[in-house]
Amino acid sequence: MAKKTAVIDLGSNSVRMVVFEKTSRYGFFICSEHKKKVRLGENAYNNNKILQEEAMLKAEKALTYFKEKALKEKCRKIIAVGTSALRDAPNAKDFIARIAKNVGLNIKCINGKTESFLGGLAALNLLSDIQNATTIDIGGGSTELCLIKEGKIVDCISLDLGTVRLKEIFYDTKKFNALDQFIQEALKQVPKHFQNENIIAIGGSLRALSNSIMKKNSYPLKMIHNFSYSFEKEKNHIEKIQNAKNLNDFNIKKDRFDTIKEGCVIFLALAKNLKAKNIITSAVGVREGVFLSNLFQKYTKIKNETTDFSKFNAKFPPNFNPSLKSIQDRFSIDYNDKSAYFANKLFDTLLPIHKINLAFKKDLINATKLSHIGERINFYFANEHSAYIALNSLHFGFSHKEILLISTILKANGKKINPFAIENIKDLLPNNHILAWLNFILALSKKLAKDTDENLDFTLKNHTLYIYSTKKQIYFSKEEIKKISKPKLIILAFNQQN
Amino acid sequence: MAKKTAVIDLGSNSVRMVVFEKTSRYGFFICSEHKKKVRLGENAYNNNKILQEEAMLKAEKALTYFKEKALKEKCRKIIAVGTSALRDAPNAKDFIARIAKNVGLNIKCINGKTESFLGGLAALNLLSDIQNATTIDIGGGSTELCLIKEGKIVDCISLDLGTVRLKEIFYDTKKFNALDQFIQEALKQVPKHFQNENIIAIGGSLRALSNSIMKKNSYPLKMIHNFSYSFEKEKNHIEKIQNAKNLNDFNIKKDRFDTIKEGCVIFLALAKNLKAKNIITSAVGVREGVFLSNLFQKYTKIKNETTDFSKFNAKFPPNFNPSLKSIQDRFSIDYNDKSAYFANKLFDTLLPIHKINLAFKKDLINATKLSHIGERINFYFANEHSAYIALNSLHFGFSHKEILLISTILKANGKKINPFAIENIKDLLPNNHILAWLNFILALSKKLAKDTDENLDFTLKNHTLYIYSTKKQIYFSKEEIKKISKPKLIILAFNQQN
Repeated sequence: MAKKTAVIDLGSNSVRMVVFEKTSRYGFFICSEHKKKVRLGENAYNNNKILQEEAMLKAEKALTYFKEKALKEKCRKIIAVGTSALRDAPNAKDFIARIAKNVGLNIKCINGKTESFLGGLAALNLLSDIQNATTIDIGGGSTELCLIKEGKIVDCISLDLGTVRLKEIFYDTKKFNALDQFIQEALKQVPKHFQNENIIAIGGSLRALSNSIMKKNSYPLKMIHNFSYSFEKEKNHIEKIQNAKNLNDFNIKKDRFDTIKEGCVIFLALAKNLKAKNIITSAVGVREGVFLSNLFQKYTKIKNETTDFSKFNAKFPPNFNPSLKSIQDRFSIDYNDKSAYFANKLFDTLLPIHKINLAFKKDLINATKLSHIGERINFYFANEHSAYIALNSLHFGFSHKEILLISTILKANGKKINPFAIENIKDLLPNNHILAWLNFILALSKKLAKDTDENLDFTLKNHTLYIYSTKKQIYFSKEEIKKISKPKLIILAFNQQN
Repeated sequence: MAKKTAVIDLGSNSVRMVVFEKTSRYGFFICSEHKKKVRLGENAYNNNKILQEEAMLKAEKALTYFKEKALKEKCRKIIAVGTSALRDAPNAKDFIARIAKNVGLNIKCINGKTESFLGGLAALNLLSDIQNATTIDIGGGSTELCLIKEGKIVDCISLDLGTVRLKEIFYDTKKFNALDQFIQEALKQVPKHFQNENIIAIGGSLRALSNSIMKKNSYPLKMIHNFSYSFEKEKNHIEKIQNAKNLNDFNIKKDRFDTIKEGCVIFLALAKNLKAKNIITSAVGVREGVFLSNLFQKYTKIKNETTDFSKFNAKFPPNFNPSLKSIQDRFSIDYNDKSAYFANKLFDTLLPIHKINLAFKKDLINATKLSHIGERINFYFANEHSAYIALNSLHFGFSHKEILLISTILKANGKKINPFAIENIKDLLPNNHILAWLNFILALSKKLAKDTDENLDFTLKNHTLYIYSTKKQIYFSKEEIKKISKPKLIILAFNQQN
């Protein structure tokens, strides 16, 4: 049976549940997401932060619904956390007890630093190659900043800035004059070392902004996670949203309209304060952080009195990617082949003539590892299906450039790449020389691996590539192999050492 | 472990292997296909049909390679059959013994009627809704005709017409005068009751012709199986290929060039003789027939002396589709939901206002059954992934129109269908009224099933659809449900009986 875990996050604005399925020790993917806009913090900010009965009732209904769904989806474990609205509320304990009694769910109220840490943990592990950055996670009740230095989380803070909070205290009451003062006070709590040119944007409001920017710029991918933009270039657009009379023209979903301006105010103030240059969008946050810290067996060790999170830093094993692994777990053929091994060797053997940066070898090998997955959809045009799955499922830990490169060479499958077919993504792809070589090596590796499981050797002399096994003659599919489009003149000599 | 079976077919022109994976009792899909153009019949036709040593050696190498591959792919069973070249050859027994000894494969030499029957069995079960038709399966050494009446195979014949045979006897020796005579003699053996306006085209040569026609007509799908065309309209194109000086302009693969003209000659003569009107392309033939007769537990009962095949007729259980089932087996979420049940009931309840032909209900329900499969690729845009898998994997037993309809409404997912997005396939889709209603019912069923496992009831009064359970109040996601695009004014009333 699938090992599924549901993580429920009871925020000030909405209750959300994510269901994760583990496909192997560290391989996992997201099976489903659920959201109910409960607004637990509703009318609390002007009522001494006391959770109101109506909001609690809505939350209880939503949690009942989520628990039912989690059980239906066969989750073995349900982890529920409560954030800002809950930790602020004088009646939080009563509410938690009520949910435990009526719904049978134990909500753990996490403090601001923990919330910040968990968001940072998710971003650090599931975005692509984060070394130095500060996260900004804007929620309904609070905003968390998490400082990442040299690939580790080093500091966490939480500010009482939240979209619902600002809406109720300042917007609904039209006390705009006091708003700026309130924000300036909050900014004073941000230590200077949080300043960073790389800002990771977490939370629904910031995703909505990134989405609006993607649409405005006709970005060629429908992929919000890992989408990055220049703050300098897009600041003006965000300010326009903040001051818009009509939000319909900004490609923002209607259910965001009521708090997006508050989100803009908080984000602009923080991004300027932190001297942001590059904004990286994260589709993952506190829920994925809870899942990961549980996966890394640290979650239960984080206590409310924890102030030093350094011992809870955790990462996947080196060279491990959870999306790649879980795609292999879900779609791979049930036998091994040598194609990745051949690709690695061929890249090195051919280095003197292709002279491609070694960094691309990783993409080549990852593509090779995924070259059979499309066969689970259909053997015919399996290369296109492999490319489709890679493009749509390599979610975590890969940059958009990497995903597109892998997908493009998988699709090409040794045929010449039509420049018109990649016209709209060419700014995100390496040059034609690199594409042609990676395409050639991938297709050759795949064909050779179809023919043999022997550890082939390759040598290059002048423009001849010698392909042979020192152990035996191989029955190569020469006709098939010769059809592969070559990046330049290169002769293939089979079963011969030079 | 997956239950895989390899079927090897040793023909006059090529040796092919198909690997089938059973995903449940009758659910299966094709994992891989392999082909080596061995031409076992080479130089036999002008040498008293004796298999030549060179050809036998090539065949032995190919069979060794295939057996290795089958074992690597973890096939539990390998079934090998030999057709025309083998059954004609005086030295067939020696060759079979040699393969048994050197390769460890037992080749069963099947007679012409059996070959015809197996091709017919595959077409009957794996094309879409075949009631009355005659198959034409043109191979290298022989051509099989199988007569299907009222959904059953009723007669089988095999003719000594084959592409390699004609090539060697007439084309290579330029004895064109004798060719026509030879064909006329063969046609005399075709009983008149084989005449049929529906012709099922089987085999590589006829697939190449269909492919050429699809390309010429810019057919919007890359799907050869179940592609049909009018013989009257395309006869001229086939004649052009037959008489072409240069085959490069016909979208025919180069490795077909050497026998495609012979294929045209045989096909044109037979199609005219049978009074063909409608040609249906089948991507399946004798190999799939072997697999199916084995699946239906009849294969070992077919003997060389069999003349009456009526007792070997076999079909899938009623309303069973092997592709649909194997997609569900491969990609389905691991819990049931009520969406197909709701779709069925909603279609009936809303019948007075949508008035759609009942035939479309089947497509609606099949789409509903597949509505979650895309989640295995990614929860985000899962509807698009479901549509992609359906489009590319509903291979057997569905017409192109059905596949496109299912895929189109899966993709729409309750959003208004953009006419530009379906412009290129609109001739294959039902009208907008039908599309809009099926889209609405599918999306509504899916959302309701997300909310509850209760057996909901639906009643329609005036323009209000009442949605309720007689047992309990349901927590419906009304906001989500109200976003579904409606085909016409219709009010949804939740938790109310009229």
